[in-house]
Amino acid sequence: MLIQVEQSLLAENDRFAAQNRAFFAGRRTRCFNLISSPGAGKTTLLEKTLSALRDRSVACAVIEGDQATDLDAQRIARTGVPVFQIETGRSCHLDAHQVQHALGRLEVPDRGLCFIENVGNLICPTEFQLGEHERVTILSVAEGADKPAKYPLAFSTATALVIAKIDLLPHVDFDLAEAKHLIAGLNPNAPIFEVSARTGFGMDAWLSWLQRAVDTPL
Amino acid sequence: MLIQVEQSLLAENDRFAAQNRAFFAGRRTRCFNLISSPGAGKTTLLEKTLSALRDRSVACAVIEGDQATDLDAQRIARTGVPVFQIETGRSCHLDAHQVQHALGRLEVPDRGLCFIENVGNLICPTEFQLGEHERVTILSVAEGADKPAKYPLAFSTATALVIAKIDLLPHVDFDLAEAKHLIAGLNPNAPIFEVSARTGFGMDAWLSWLQRAVDTPL
Repeated sequence: MLIQVEQSLLAENDRFAAQNRAFFAGRRTRCFNLISSPGAGKTTLLEKTLSALRDRSVACAVIEGDQATDLDAQRIARTGVPVFQIETGRSCHLDAHQVQHALGRLEVPDRGLCFIENVGNLICPTEFQLGEHERVTILSVAEGADKPAKYPLAFSTATALVIAKIDLLPHVDFDLAEAKHLIAGLNPNAPIFEVSARTGFGMDAWLSWLQRAVDTPL
Repeated sequence: MLIQVEQSLLAENDRFAAQNRAFFAGRRTRCFNLISSPGAGKTTLLEKTLSALRDRSVACAVIEGDQATDLDAQRIARTGVPVFQIETGRSCHLDAHQVQHALGRLEVPDRGLCFIENVGNLICPTEFQLGEHERVTILSVAEGADKPAKYPLAFSTATALVIAKIDLLPHVDFDLAEAKHLIAGLNPNAPIFEVSARTGFGMDAWLSWLQRAVDTPL
């Protein structure tokens, strides 16, 4: 009974996700779903990414998901990029219907990029397609190298991985080789970007990957 | 319909939680439910805490929850404390029925402490009582000071807070006063422990609080 309800919930979600994907096809814009623990650095990475993409003349839009507050949306708004905030209340993930609602109210660019910053949670968001073309899971080095083994779906369902806060490596016990080995075991083909949004380390490779998404037709 | 299912799920969970609480009363042992994001440092704090409590002749037991792997249970087992691992599979939190199952298989001490390390997730575990006497939410300074505002239930429903990885403060942008102010706004009476399990900073106050739980009859 409970399982049936969950299945019908996910099936309904997938229908909305397909519609969102069609909307993005109409806008010729690629959508990126960013998933991580709370505090892994999604918003800071996004702030720096949006500024750099503006310098490359790539138009962007952002959907922000949070259980409460519009703190992140305020941070994104200061970059000048259109942003729509979804407050999920007690819910632990964004769903495709919420994203559809946001897409009706957000200025999504033509031939640009749309970023969805999901609720900070390595588990529940993995079950819900939002209509994204790329799913980027972000792991901060402060969290420990064992996280891919412990939260496998977040890493196996991603199409790209970011290992964030690389500048903290000297100050934490994080085995970078082990983390990359665990990720490759779950997801051998996805690119892994080692990045520090604070120092700029690794940002070029990450930005070039995003730029390719703009330059490649959907 | 979905809401009714969720309500009946939570009501069923609460019945098992009440039974677990009665079991702990029978054992005269207090139970602590540890909640945090992935990688906030629950397991490391627990390892150091168990070693220190052994030196104080406090008997302990541990229930470990993880989506996958028994990595944390292996780490706890090396401290010599009885531990039972619950692998939750796709589920994002422990529930009271799983804990009841574990209590039937774990050597829970008399007049001791039982720690439950919940699945790393700041959202879903807050909805599920496990029969704990104390709920300890752990926030690492690597996660950012805004987290209490963004994940309010994790902080408002706690009976104690730990701000962990205090040794990283010089290397991250974390406003300690702001974090404490946000926590106090949500939860004015719960004690806040600033701790580095790695350096030992703040461990005495945390251990004394746990010791008081042993010395105070249930």
